[in-house]
Amino acid sequence: MKVKRINHVSLAVPTLDEGRTALSVLGLLALPDEFVANQKTNTCFLQTQEGETALELIAPAGNESLIRFLDRRGPGMHHICLEVDDIAQTLAELAAAGVDLVDKTPRAGAHGHLVAFIHPRATGGVLFELCQSAQGETSS
Amino acid sequence: MKVKRINHVSLAVPTLDEGRTALSVLGLLALPDEFVANQKTNTCFLQTQEGETALELIAPAGNESLIRFLDRRGPGMHHICLEVDDIAQTLAELAAAGVDLVDKTPRAGAHGHLVAFIHPRATGGVLFELCQSAQGETSS
Repeated sequence: MKVKRINHVSLAVPTLDEGRTALSVLGLLALPDEFVANQKTNTCFLQTQEGETALELIAPAGNESLIRFLDRRGPGMHHICLEVDDIAQTLAELAAAGVDLVDKTPRAGAHGHLVAFIHPRATGGVLFELCQSAQGETSS
Repeated sequence: MKVKRINHVSLAVPTLDEGRTALSVLGLLALPDEFVANQKTNTCFLQTQEGETALELIAPAGNESLIRFLDRRGPGMHHICLEVDDIAQTLAELAAAGVDLVDKTPRAGAHGHLVAFIHPRATGGVLFELCQSAQGETSS
């Protein structure tokens, strides 16, 4: 598996407004909110001045697993998203190697990217998302 | 406060070897281990193919707070490190704004960088480290 870059790091928050307020001290640039129907979440990307890797706030909009995460642990780091060139091929390679996958095929994520999650059992308890940028974009 | 980029995302692991083994499926490039005396940790950076933002494994080498973190939560995401141009000035600005800081003055971190932690109370429960690259380097 070849990881191009870390696309974003996701922080679970009760609502996007609460997340933006909590992180306002960092002075990051908030992109417009997006409702990701496929994942039942509201998301907002927070960008740095020069970096390609963003923070992503994710708030539940019906996502039961995210609601449980917030109930159990409170707001905090949720997952790390790794960008690859060909997500379908990467998933096929991982499946062939016996790696435990949440998504065996890609689905639509934020910004029209194709995304899939690796099961945290396969990566020492850390949740990793894979993404392939839409239409040859190189960053979120 | 102006954040240039996310320098790295740190994952707490019992030992660097266990962390590398757990993440081997991702195919990242491991830099040499480093003992950070000031923080009583062993660290290892894992780089992507093209990205400036790395993963950092941190394992306790006497760091009591990290040992407690691992006892309480197990291995997982620990903190996010934000790169700034002038860490002393940034800390002064944050202190003047009443932001709760773990380190009021910078100390030596991995790779000879100057680092300081913001208290997670100030950022919605997420632990952020600030870093200023050593000698004009732009990335870890």
